[in-house]
Amino acid sequence: MTLVIALDLMGGDNAPEVAVEGAAIARARFPDLRFLLFGDEAKVRPHLAKHPDIAAMEFVHTSEFVAGDAKPSLALRQGRQSSMRLAINAVKDGSAAAAVSAGNTGALMAMAKFVLKTLPGIDRPAIAGPMPTSDKTAVVLDLGANVDCGVEHLVQFAVMGHVFARIVTGVADPKIGLLNIGTEDLKGSDEIRSAAAILRSSSLAGAFYGFVEGTDVTKGVVDVVVTDGFTGNVALKIAEGTASMYSSFLRTAFRSDWRAKLGYLLAKPALDRVRTRLDPRRYNGAMLLGLNGVVVKSHGGTDAVGFGHAIGAAVELVRAGANERIIEEMTRMAAQDSSAPAAAVG
Amino acid sequence: MTLVIALDLMGGDNAPEVAVEGAAIARARFPDLRFLLFGDEAKVRPHLAKHPDIAAMEFVHTSEFVAGDAKPSLALRQGRQSSMRLAINAVKDGSAAAAVSAGNTGALMAMAKFVLKTLPGIDRPAIAGPMPTSDKTAVVLDLGANVDCGVEHLVQFAVMGHVFARIVTGVADPKIGLLNIGTEDLKGSDEIRSAAAILRSSSLAGAFYGFVEGTDVTKGVVDVVVTDGFTGNVALKIAEGTASMYSSFLRTAFRSDWRAKLGYLLAKPALDRVRTRLDPRRYNGAMLLGLNGVVVKSHGGTDAVGFGHAIGAAVELVRAGANERIIEEMTRMAAQDSSAPAAAVG
Repeated sequence: MTLVIALDLMGGDNAPEVAVEGAAIARARFPDLRFLLFGDEAKVRPHLAKHPDIAAMEFVHTSEFVAGDAKPSLALRQGRQSSMRLAINAVKDGSAAAAVSAGNTGALMAMAKFVLKTLPGIDRPAIAGPMPTSDKTAVVLDLGANVDCGVEHLVQFAVMGHVFARIVTGVADPKIGLLNIGTEDLKGSDEIRSAAAILRSSSLAGAFYGFVEGTDVTKGVVDVVVTDGFTGNVALKIAEGTASMYSSFLRTAFRSDWRAKLGYLLAKPALDRVRTRLDPRRYNGAMLLGLNGVVVKSHGGTDAVGFGHAIGAAVELVRAGANERIIEEMTRMAAQDSSAPAAAVG
Repeated sequence: MTLVIALDLMGGDNAPEVAVEGAAIARARFPDLRFLLFGDEAKVRPHLAKHPDIAAMEFVHTSEFVAGDAKPSLALRQGRQSSMRLAINAVKDGSAAAAVSAGNTGALMAMAKFVLKTLPGIDRPAIAGPMPTSDKTAVVLDLGANVDCGVEHLVQFAVMGHVFARIVTGVADPKIGLLNIGTEDLKGSDEIRSAAAILRSSSLAGAFYGFVEGTDVTKGVVDVVVTDGFTGNVALKIAEGTASMYSSFLRTAFRSDWRAKLGYLLAKPALDRVRTRLDPRRYNGAMLLGLNGVVVKSHGGTDAVGFGHAIGAAVELVRAGANERIIEEMTRMAAQDSSAPAAAVG
């Protein structure tokens, strides 16, 4: 079945080249994919020239785009004709099944929330993304949409993350952990402890592992890591930064003398497998979860391979009916809550 | 000059062996060091037998100790004769210049705060620790003592971290960053933005870099990373977990076939330098900053080398007059604040 994805071609550090090349990569993987392209025609044309199949697809010209450092509220007011906004509008009016952008995250969230509205039962959308762990890929949310989170938001993130993990990581019965500074019941803020109490007595009780610490996340103790947007954003960027520091120390070490250089050449095939395993481009594509529509945010600094992965994530979410499944799980939880004895909600 | 350090021998995963062996390592580095030892004599004696110089030092027997999972408030009430509490008491009554423990962090903080009280101008003590970055060692605080932090706490952490960094990392003019989810002025919580405004118009204005993201921390953009105890704890443990995941992937890669094994042998000297650079034991020894006395927390899972580093950190803090310098800087800041025009503070 043909699937139409709206692409904001003008977001990210190397727009529009990365988006066009990424579209070509995604199309090689999903041949029945069609794109609805939004961007500045003069800037995009040279890149489209290399891909006649994509150049033949529907193109909507706009000279406006959202700057990477634009204030979200300002972008929302002034960016009504921006490539980002038009791509989101296409999801709203049904001409596309999903939108993908590598632009300003805050503006994308503000626009998507304004245009698409949240799903029933969801107060605030969250940004969810994959993160490598020692034996699998975990889903972490929120990655930065909500600086402060109340109890009910954390619970809603758990529901959405549970659905997202099943689709993106393919785990049949994902375990959910609440990120905390210790695993004992008394650790953390009141919000976190209350969220844990609610999850323990909810329809997700079987999937709820409990509190996890930072080291548990990388060990892969759980499949879904629930946290507020401030902590999640810091955690993701500290993990990225640490991995990149480690790589750079290794590069220096392997160049330090002839023995190390030769050693590197011999070990290269094995080391390349590690590099592939941890390649940040494989973990590109954060979803704006909880909206009436699928919107995927690509990392602004990624390359075409990474942008292609973000499109791939959008395709998987649409095909798996992510939003329908979130609504189902919210309904199940609400039913369980209303039938549960009040004391158990604690 | 002889320096006396009180040691809680009963804290941590491999007590008391790690503490005794760590003491021996520290003494080899600082020959004029003396210890005041607190622990269960029957359990400690076999380990002291190997180190007659340490066995000859003052030993205070107690069969009580604080369990690793004890609730801090309970440990405070019931652990008055514990090895941890007696070591802190020794700092209070002047028989030791500092205390070192690898035990329960929450209990150590609760006891130290109760016994020693906070320094003038400091509302809440913080846990500060070193963290490796690509070109230096940064100091991060708070690492978990304060789950929720107000504006004034973050400002006080900046003052304490600035002093701590000069002593521990030897940087003459450390740069201070406030951990945030973006570097733009409008990012983050009200508390963080207000703390930034106060620091910009304070006596520390020259040292204040502004907001830093997770990736800036590992890049070494600043020397002092200020954050609340929840975020700091998660950041530290995510960094540890990521580094350890990376190492374990590498180990597997180097064992995967004969080429990789041979490559490893050739590159080993160069790789060992990276390993040494990132050895978590080198970063062991978090200080409980802001107390009337020097108390250092060793990681509970470290070995003798790590415990020795924690003792070394205590020695450096005492010799450098860390607390006197914190008081000086707080006084300077208070003087500047009262002379500053009110509008500049906002």
